Amino acid sequence: MSHQPLVSSKMARRLLRILRGYQHLASPPFVSPHLWHSSILLPIRSSFVRTMVTLPFSFSLKPRDFSLPNSSWNAETMRLYDYYNKQCEVENEVGEKQRGPWRRLPSYNRTLKYATGGAYLSKFIQSKNRLFTRSIKTAGAAFEYVVFLNKEEERSVCIFQAGHLLEGPPGHVHGGAIATMIDSVTGTHAAFMSGPVMTANLNINYRSPIPLGSTVLINSSLDHKEGRKTFISCKVTSSDGSKLHTEATALFLSIKVSHLLGV
Amino acid sequence: MSHQPLVSSKMARRLLRILRGYQHLASPPFVSPHLWHSSILLPIRSSFVRTMVTLPFSFSLKPRDFSLPNSSWNAETMRLYDYYNKQCEVENEVGEKQRGPWRRLPSYNRTLKYATGGAYLSKFIQSKNRLFTRSIKTAGAAFEYVVFLNKEEERSVCIFQAGHLLEGPPGHVHGGAIATMIDSVTGTHAAFMSGPVMTANLNINYRSPIPLGSTVLINSSLDHKEGRKTFISCKVTSSDGSKLHTEATALFLSIKVSHLLGV
Repeated sequence: MSHQPLVSSKMARRLLRILRGYQHLASPPFVSPHLWHSSILLPIRSSFVRTMVTLPFSFSLKPRDFSLPNSSWNAETMRLYDYYNKQCEVENEVGEKQRGPWRRLPSYNRTLKYATGGAYLSKFIQSKNRLFTRSIKTAGAAFEYVVFLNKEEERSVCIFQAGHLLEGPPGHVHGGAIATMIDSVTGTHAAFMSGPVMTANLNINYRSPIPLGSTVLINSSLDHKEGRKTFISCKVTSSDGSKLHTEATALFLSIKVSHLLGV
Repeated sequence: MSHQPLVSSKMARRLLRILRGYQHLASPPFVSPHLWHSSILLPIRSSFVRTMVTLPFSFSLKPRDFSLPNSSWNAETMRLYDYYNKQCEVENEVGEKQRGPWRRLPSYNRTLKYATGGAYLSKFIQSKNRLFTRSIKTAGAAFEYVVFLNKEEERSVCIFQAGHLLEGPPGHVHGGAIATMIDSVTGTHAAFMSGPVMTANLNINYRSPIPLGSTVLINSSLDHKEGRKTFISCKVTSSDGSKLHTEATALFLSIKVSHLLGV
């Protein structure tokens, strides 16, 4: 028994699974991802031990933030990322750093962004479900994107680089993949404006196809709010804004999360 | 030299790659997938040999048809598949088998369905591009579906089982994944009615969320054709048709493939 570690490998794997399950809690807009930057103490209960252990460093407690650059991002994607990212923190007149007009939105592959937590979380925590736009982990293969939000101007911009697994017409992005990005960007935007929402309508006009591998901008702007309804407009253009690929309107309805969770 | 095979392993790998590239030619509506049911003779040219060789059986010449059942399909998906599949071939009064009202559409993960072939195929043949709805190969993880077409009634039906990698709201299918299926089903339907087309508009109303893992029906019907335009309507319902999840209209424009390929 002397060689048996305090936390068995089986228990460690279970812990890891549970911890990973909680990663979605770091998703915006409910909990800041910075919660996970420090080491964490966990209560463990078993028939043998009931104590506090520090998890070893090999446990990756930080969920992967897919909105950060990776090696697959091309020069244009990086240029645009840097442009908006620099405007997330600016210097004032006396050289102090302060919040800028833009805010980068972190992005994870497990979301419960519409959930408020509680007993009903448990059934999702151990599920295999993954956010559709982040379910392919291979860098550059599918949806590479980052969303920046400008609260004051009530608009957001998404830098989207389309990978080779998103093909529709030969060499070009599938209409469904474009619709997916429009739904994601306008939905994220609407949620920041109105709290938990569900998509009620998407009306999409496809003007010119998007070549696979290219970088496009998805600009989303708030049209108006009316009771439970949030109306958003959206344009997908070439990275320099000169070519219109797609334009869309989107309608979102504010919801009670409990309804979606069946409680 | 006596031990050197006629086709070196390097050459064999290259051949296999080229052959795989040509698999999309088995996609409807241009070439029947039945072309691939028999063994194939290939002309090979190199500095040493210029002859005809029969490729060994270990080469998998038949592309995977994703529209066929796999172990992940649940009982309801299988029941619906059997229902429509039985109507693809029927017996007449004297017991002879003949074509039924429905036709199952094969589905592959490399498409050049809008392409007519020729010199401009070469740049696609060796590409990593994969059809968006078939790019995740793990059975049951993402889009499991089969489309049946009824030419006489100018309608199609898709049996769609949504996997755990398509999550949007917790436990439910992403609006973009639903839009993707609507675009795919109505687009396939339009292509059978009008030849090569591109999506011009999708107008989607989301009525009630679709639980992950469930099986739904996507019914697509031709509204009308007008010059280059093909108008399609579409409803996504529960598998027994009692619950309306989503309804949509779609507009497709007939295109010249050469335009898309930049020639």
